[in-house]
Amino acid sequence: MGCSNEHAALATDVLLKADLRGIDSHGVARLIGYVRLWENKRINARPNITIVHETPTTATIDGDAGLGLVVAPFAMRLAIQKAEQYGSGWVSVRNSNHFGIAGYHTLMAVEKDMIGFAMTNASPLVAPTFSNERLLGTNPMCYAFPAGKYPPVIIDMATSAAANGKLEIAQRLGKQVPEGWIQDKEGDFTTDPHALKSGGSLLPLGSDRDHGSHKGFGLSATVDILSAVLSGANYGPWVPPFVAFLEPPADPVGLGIGHFVGAMRVDGFRPVDEFKSHLDNWISRFKSASTIDADQKVIIPGEPEMEAEADRKQNGIPLVDAVVKDLNWLAEKFGVNPLAP
Amino acid sequence: MGCSNEHAALATDVLLKADLRGIDSHGVARLIGYVRLWENKRINARPNITIVHETPTTATIDGDAGLGLVVAPFAMRLAIQKAEQYGSGWVSVRNSNHFGIAGYHTLMAVEKDMIGFAMTNASPLVAPTFSNERLLGTNPMCYAFPAGKYPPVIIDMATSAAANGKLEIAQRLGKQVPEGWIQDKEGDFTTDPHALKSGGSLLPLGSDRDHGSHKGFGLSATVDILSAVLSGANYGPWVPPFVAFLEPPADPVGLGIGHFVGAMRVDGFRPVDEFKSHLDNWISRFKSASTIDADQKVIIPGEPEMEAEADRKQNGIPLVDAVVKDLNWLAEKFGVNPLAP
Repeated sequence: MGCSNEHAALATDVLLKADLRGIDSHGVARLIGYVRLWENKRINARPNITIVHETPTTATIDGDAGLGLVVAPFAMRLAIQKAEQYGSGWVSVRNSNHFGIAGYHTLMAVEKDMIGFAMTNASPLVAPTFSNERLLGTNPMCYAFPAGKYPPVIIDMATSAAANGKLEIAQRLGKQVPEGWIQDKEGDFTTDPHALKSGGSLLPLGSDRDHGSHKGFGLSATVDILSAVLSGANYGPWVPPFVAFLEPPADPVGLGIGHFVGAMRVDGFRPVDEFKSHLDNWISRFKSASTIDADQKVIIPGEPEMEAEADRKQNGIPLVDAVVKDLNWLAEKFGVNPLAP
Repeated sequence: MGCSNEHAALATDVLLKADLRGIDSHGVARLIGYVRLWENKRINARPNITIVHETPTTATIDGDAGLGLVVAPFAMRLAIQKAEQYGSGWVSVRNSNHFGIAGYHTLMAVEKDMIGFAMTNASPLVAPTFSNERLLGTNPMCYAFPAGKYPPVIIDMATSAAANGKLEIAQRLGKQVPEGWIQDKEGDFTTDPHALKSGGSLLPLGSDRDHGSHKGFGLSATVDILSAVLSGANYGPWVPPFVAFLEPPADPVGLGIGHFVGAMRVDGFRPVDEFKSHLDNWISRFKSASTIDADQKVIIPGEPEMEAEADRKQNGIPLVDAVVKDLNWLAEKFGVNPLAP
């Protein structure tokens, strides 16, 4: 695409990290999507990322329509620099694109013994409580905390009842989905994973009003406001779609999509070793919690991804045929070697 | 109780704000609970609140076992001061008590054209996904954003499927609750609002694994870690119970309960008028969303509380008999005039 070597290496690192951590929906499977957006001139391969507004601990960045995979790490590096100097740093980002897994960016902070925050808005697929209109993305939020003897605690979650990736899996397998993930265009629960194609929408975390969907809506709104209303990106139904075959809205309210990242030094609050030893105690207590089924322990957030990473570093990353086909199509297009058969 | 006039006035303001905003569970109805904790020497009426650790934009505060109603505003004032100077401020609090409604504290930031954050941990009532053990509080988180012509957007939510106050209402009315709010001690859904008394537990937002209860658990964990692991307060099952008739755990891992508050200047990111005008546009778009039922519009977070405040400022705050009785008992105890009949 013409990315600089530095940007290409960084984007590769973000995508590979997703595959290593078992989040296949956000790894190299997305590469073809980025390329198609670049072909449509919606991704700029050589962005001039700039700081457009700044205080000692806050900033707004314009990503110049670059890959979110390089824009978000730029923002997080700036947040970390500010945190090193002043205790915390917060960066809102406009004019960006899909930033891969939020966990990658928060881990940059964790490696420096900081607490990491990352969120992004996304193409509208989710309806607010009481509505049947797709006005919000699955808008993920991520919080990451460095532990001592245990892996970091990483809460990385879509603010919808189910992430879009889970829906895609059900579509591929021809399976129904649980009630509470999707509604049809009349606003009734449906178990048809294809309901989005006929005017349906994803539901916020909580699924319905009785079970707290107004909270999932509130969390998604928080992500949208911090990422886009604060930075000058598009928000709500104006967020441009990820897929290249859908045109962005003709009446944008901002530039590209938005992210929000932050870093806080643990030792801005208490000595790092004290924090880590108490977080280890927290983890250990929750891991040993009494469980409903003897064979299903409590899962510490971030643990499954860490286990996948250990396994895949050893045994490699399995790719489904469709992804291999896409990658080989890209290899031919760009004149590089195809994957070994 | 011997509070200073300043602290008494502040605590009153926090409680009255809850009643005005229609959050009756967190208003003067709680006064008797605070008094009973004070009688048990678990609340210090004349705390010496101190900053124990600090950077330009972060701090840890020791509340000296004071009323959370005065400790949390102290913390928020410090966060706001830091934000005025450096763009943002973040304060973790230990050795505190119940802080009332989170919305009160975030509104302090909103009044200064800042974005407000507030969260607190609480007595363990909620089980993590896959567990039947009460290890987490309903751990609320609150985000507040100043708008222009509309009231501020305030997301103020328990991270459990239902707040404890809703359960108490069902108990009082002898009603069943929806499936997905509570499980019994075997970990099965129950609709009995009294199930907590026989070893049951509240469920995280999402209710079960299929509907994202691991996300509710993750959010609750985030609140617990930022509020208590970071500050040196008690976390998880060690959080002391709110009710005075239950003893705190004999093996505390910290001091009191914990809060976490923060403030970020809007103009640390973009001019305030630009932000407010786009947030107004966001609100206006969501208010006019297509709805499933013609008579139920999309509710903007914070809107119902603002409407209650307008109504109750005009028409007064209705009190249920039990609360009137408690207040008159307190009036007699402290030698002040009872409520007019």
